[in-house]
Amino acid sequence: MNEHASHDTIRAVQWHGDHLALLDQRLLPFEERWFNCTTADEVTDAIRVLAVRGAPAIGIAAAWGVVLAAKAGIPLEPVLVTLRAARPTAVNLMWALDRMRARIAEEADAAALEREAQAIQDEDLAANRRMGELGAALIEPGSHVLTHCNTGSLATAGYGTALGVIRAAVEAGRVSQVYAGETRPWLQGARLTMWELVRDGIPAKLVADSAASHLMKHGQVKWVIVGADRIAANGDTANKIGTYQLAIAARHHGVKFMVVAPSTTVDMATETGEDIEIELREATELLSVAGTRTVIEGADAWNPVFDVTPAALIDAIVTERGVILRPDETQMRALFG
Amino acid sequence: MNEHASHDTIRAVQWHGDHLALLDQRLLPFEERWFNCTTADEVTDAIRVLAVRGAPAIGIAAAWGVVLAAKAGIPLEPVLVTLRAARPTAVNLMWALDRMRARIAEEADAAALEREAQAIQDEDLAANRRMGELGAALIEPGSHVLTHCNTGSLATAGYGTALGVIRAAVEAGRVSQVYAGETRPWLQGARLTMWELVRDGIPAKLVADSAASHLMKHGQVKWVIVGADRIAANGDTANKIGTYQLAIAARHHGVKFMVVAPSTTVDMATETGEDIEIELREATELLSVAGTRTVIEGADAWNPVFDVTPAALIDAIVTERGVILRPDETQMRALFG
Repeated sequence: MNEHASHDTIRAVQWHGDHLALLDQRLLPFEERWFNCTTADEVTDAIRVLAVRGAPAIGIAAAWGVVLAAKAGIPLEPVLVTLRAARPTAVNLMWALDRMRARIAEEADAAALEREAQAIQDEDLAANRRMGELGAALIEPGSHVLTHCNTGSLATAGYGTALGVIRAAVEAGRVSQVYAGETRPWLQGARLTMWELVRDGIPAKLVADSAASHLMKHGQVKWVIVGADRIAANGDTANKIGTYQLAIAARHHGVKFMVVAPSTTVDMATETGEDIEIELREATELLSVAGTRTVIEGADAWNPVFDVTPAALIDAIVTERGVILRPDETQMRALFG
Repeated sequence: MNEHASHDTIRAVQWHGDHLALLDQRLLPFEERWFNCTTADEVTDAIRVLAVRGAPAIGIAAAWGVVLAAKAGIPLEPVLVTLRAARPTAVNLMWALDRMRARIAEEADAAALEREAQAIQDEDLAANRRMGELGAALIEPGSHVLTHCNTGSLATAGYGTALGVIRAAVEAGRVSQVYAGETRPWLQGARLTMWELVRDGIPAKLVADSAASHLMKHGQVKWVIVGADRIAANGDTANKIGTYQLAIAARHHGVKFMVVAPSTTVDMATETGEDIEIELREATELLSVAGTRTVIEGADAWNPVFDVTPAALIDAIVTERGVILRPDETQMRALFG
């Protein structure tokens, strides 16, 4: 019974030499269909329509998009601009494209860019493994934990950020029960995180996003563990809508709050969370659920898909470079320069 | 343009002399189909399957169920027991049945029981109108407010509790923008509250339950206004899952928190919220959304459908008997004996 081994087999972003295959996250958990990209424009589309999602995975996919353009002999600067605009909040996207741009500036050829994209992907997986160890060490044996959105193999090069910590903690006997928030409007928790957890045989229960506080009061939750789309220089963290609310509830209940993200998610050029652009998506995403319209015609909705959790509500930021407890700008500058 | 008049036309619980017609809330907003009950058992079913919902509406429907049994000459005690067990959390159900039982003890005939049920229904509507005035007076002109679940005409004899306050406040120019939380898992906010608000021409936007804190930080929300399923003797309030989380978020942001419920919702025999039974419903309600399965087979879920907000997080309890600010047991006993 290798119930904890299957996470190693999920690779949602796969480079095949002449095309990029993305496990289409809009169709999971019921259909495992691959979204194949042979051009950079197709990669941009995949990011925009959320076929690929998760801050680290978006960055990796974008790097491969540049490789596809380089192989096709297309001018790369417009490609970099288009990919960069695909989604505004995740800084990993900008980071990966900046890294590719630096190689382009060195007049790297397509083969060199291909190696660079592969390095970005490999480093993300290694970072996840390291964060798993570091984060799991913070958790007392037998803890119940709550996570939000999907931060697993599907959102990264593999293993996961917050979900990587949870995987490592389960293997180490530190986590005995995982609760996953549904994560409206896209239901990443319901559709994707539960899929990963059930595949791994990890004891898991889905909860409504709105049930988190009731759960903290009654469910022996010790940690809320989430990922990040951007971490500002003072530790303020942008992540999936609902994260901020979980942080407030955690503090109210004395539950600890952990952010897990690779150093590529840290944006020292952004001073505080106030400076992070929050993506507003179309009202229609809230007016339908799983493809079924649920709200009367003529209704409007407000659909911010990220929010900012202030550093003061965060107990630990876990990166592959190390852990920051009670983050502030001084500690952030010490670790991320 | 009678845009504020249509709420007077929604009567979701209608007695027709030989049957009870319930506007089936599972099918709204797209289909207005009536669930017709000719027996008490059918009323019990309607309550159980959520064809009728909302604490006051459940109580009213149950009273009519007793009338149907009386007219059929069925022994009434077992009917009272069955109806009482249909849902555990809403005290209005118990209250309405106790009131009918008291009339039965006086050997009231079917016609007298019919008058009693009609009185229960009429008094609820009058209470809502009065609460609307009292609650609206607490709100500063031009406020934005957030509500949860559905507490409108559909949940009551008409007009609504929390939504009645919002209606009165909109008419008085005190509320300029309403935000409605989706209210997973049943989406009462998305399906029902938005339907009522759009029908009334009230400026309204739907938000994900998890976006409430981000909204409070950025949306000029002055009040969160919710209903109740049971209010304990110390002011602790059971209401739809997610209410407690909104109260925590409201306090964190300095947003005020108002509970609106008729005195029939107050249960002075329940000392604190700890003593309120919280209904746990089937995991399947979370594993599907709007009839579409969204979660992988084999997944489990935790589905409490109510939670308890401690009195300390409530700024005002509005009933038709008066308003209690910063509720505590002393004030509760003074108003409700």
